[in-house]
Amino acid sequence: MVERMRQMERIACLGGGHGLFSTLRASRQVADHVTAIVTVADDGGSSGRMRREFGSLPPGDLRMALAALTKDSERGRLWEELLQHRFGGNGALKGHAVGNFLITGLSQVMGDDIAALDEIGRLLGIKGRVVPMSPEPLDLEAEVLGLEEDPREVIAVRGQVAVASTLGEVRRVRLIPTDPPAADPAVEAIHRADVVTLGPGSWFSSVIPHVLVPGIVDALNTTAATKVMIMNLVSEPGETSHMSMEHHIHMIRQHCPSLTIDVIVVDLSTMPGAAVRRHVERAAATLGARVIYRDVREDDNRGRWTDRHMPDKLAAVLSEIAACPHADVAELRNIPPEY
Amino acid sequence: MVERMRQMERIACLGGGHGLFSTLRASRQVADHVTAIVTVADDGGSSGRMRREFGSLPPGDLRMALAALTKDSERGRLWEELLQHRFGGNGALKGHAVGNFLITGLSQVMGDDIAALDEIGRLLGIKGRVVPMSPEPLDLEAEVLGLEEDPREVIAVRGQVAVASTLGEVRRVRLIPTDPPAADPAVEAIHRADVVTLGPGSWFSSVIPHVLVPGIVDALNTTAATKVMIMNLVSEPGETSHMSMEHHIHMIRQHCPSLTIDVIVVDLSTMPGAAVRRHVERAAATLGARVIYRDVREDDNRGRWTDRHMPDKLAAVLSEIAACPHADVAELRNIPPEY
Repeated sequence: MVERMRQMERIACLGGGHGLFSTLRASRQVADHVTAIVTVADDGGSSGRMRREFGSLPPGDLRMALAALTKDSERGRLWEELLQHRFGGNGALKGHAVGNFLITGLSQVMGDDIAALDEIGRLLGIKGRVVPMSPEPLDLEAEVLGLEEDPREVIAVRGQVAVASTLGEVRRVRLIPTDPPAADPAVEAIHRADVVTLGPGSWFSSVIPHVLVPGIVDALNTTAATKVMIMNLVSEPGETSHMSMEHHIHMIRQHCPSLTIDVIVVDLSTMPGAAVRRHVERAAATLGARVIYRDVREDDNRGRWTDRHMPDKLAAVLSEIAACPHADVAELRNIPPEY
Repeated sequence: MVERMRQMERIACLGGGHGLFSTLRASRQVADHVTAIVTVADDGGSSGRMRREFGSLPPGDLRMALAALTKDSERGRLWEELLQHRFGGNGALKGHAVGNFLITGLSQVMGDDIAALDEIGRLLGIKGRVVPMSPEPLDLEAEVLGLEEDPREVIAVRGQVAVASTLGEVRRVRLIPTDPPAADPAVEAIHRADVVTLGPGSWFSSVIPHVLVPGIVDALNTTAATKVMIMNLVSEPGETSHMSMEHHIHMIRQHCPSLTIDVIVVDLSTMPGAAVRRHVERAAATLGARVIYRDVREDDNRGRWTDRHMPDKLAAVLSEIAACPHADVAELRNIPPEY
């Protein structure tokens, strides 16, 4: 943890899954208080089984966010490992994560998901909060092309796992129920933040769902925070294979035309040439966003890139953005400009 | 919690299940440091399912002991409730207690049951420790009479649940493997204690197993602590139905002839007459123990007795025992003597 990078009081990070984990790990380094705002449309694995068994919020993405924000100490790492630990064997408990039991159990005891997440956060000494984007479990449904003989036929595919693994082309997703309420602390955190991040993550499962919640969009469009969208490093097999980066940006605009973004962070390694950059910058402009190119990709210490963002590098970029005088992101330079 | 009763530094409580829970709740009031030494032969319910699924220590009795020792505060009560909370519904998780996942999960992560229990205790702010009597999961096997047409035929009944619910008469129990190792911190706690308690609890499942562990017996026979056995209030259906109180005491001696006890605590409501008292006192003398009669039974605030010990009353008795000058239990008076 690099203390000199601590540049802001509050950050709010929207997302889900591994992408949100990286952003939170970065944010933990540069902000005094981090709020994770987490999707609740997951229906796979341990989360999906609990959701079906109890009708509760899917705990998995909430658990990963709690794990990301545990203290950077020996004890913090132990509790992180416990939260993420999955039971093995071949029995009824196989694959369930310990943290999911903790979240679901305490929610049942307290009768309040948000109070339960706060209580676990307090126990683990987290400097921030983990909150669901909506207080209700949601379903994801996608319009998918290319699953039928007639290539123009649109099929509705229901459920996050089904959408993430479809062989067709996802044209649009929606939440069920539509226009779900935003969680109050999510709205409050967006308003109080110095910086808000959206992404990286599974575009249709973890990123776009946030901009389908009217209360979240209102908060994003009225906050004084600098709004940062962090692009993915690679396309995901299934839902976003063959989707270009500008297509990702267009998808955000298509799902939420009113949304504006201040800065879009693109990893240097994903930007091969000037023509592609122009396309991306044109798409970004439709959101009102400036694109900055930075090295934010993890390497394996042997010179090879991984497919993950590196929290230390993301932290440096978030710190740089927060340090802009008067939040004027036009100050951000693309260096080396000739890259 | 009655602070004036705090009379000793260290107490060690041997047992399991609800009986141990009451003793620990009492001990929490009168000692600065409480060690719960817990049986590990349970094979029923959530514990049994986890034990079979993972080959781990049965977590249930360990969980109840942790719950008993949580802080007497609003937050302590919340975490106690979480540890004890059982999932409902009709799915694969039904009946599992959240604390069992926490104990089993952290043991798997740390590769060390005792370190995991200590870590959970630290997190919950417990002033003491919860340790298994043995580091290995054990099985209980009983010699049972009266299950065959020939009433003299002895049948071996295997497993704690089977023993506890047998319709026959339990003559003797043994642990499998026999002569299991004692857990080091259990031995250490017995040696360092001012007072050690054994019982109340299911006699064959939670009390006698302790005196079948040679290392525990050695520690009991060499400690300078005052050794207190607390008798049950009622016979349990199944394993001890129709067993008199002196029979309970004889069973201890039969299973562990070398064991000595200093004080046996008998509830006043269970002692109807002088003849029965003489039988009990004669049995107690074979263990070297003095019998004291005290009101330790819970009532329901409407004048009716429950079947549980009341922690506040037990605390007063433990405090009285700890206050004997030079640990001389001959100082303890039976008042009113004519009762």
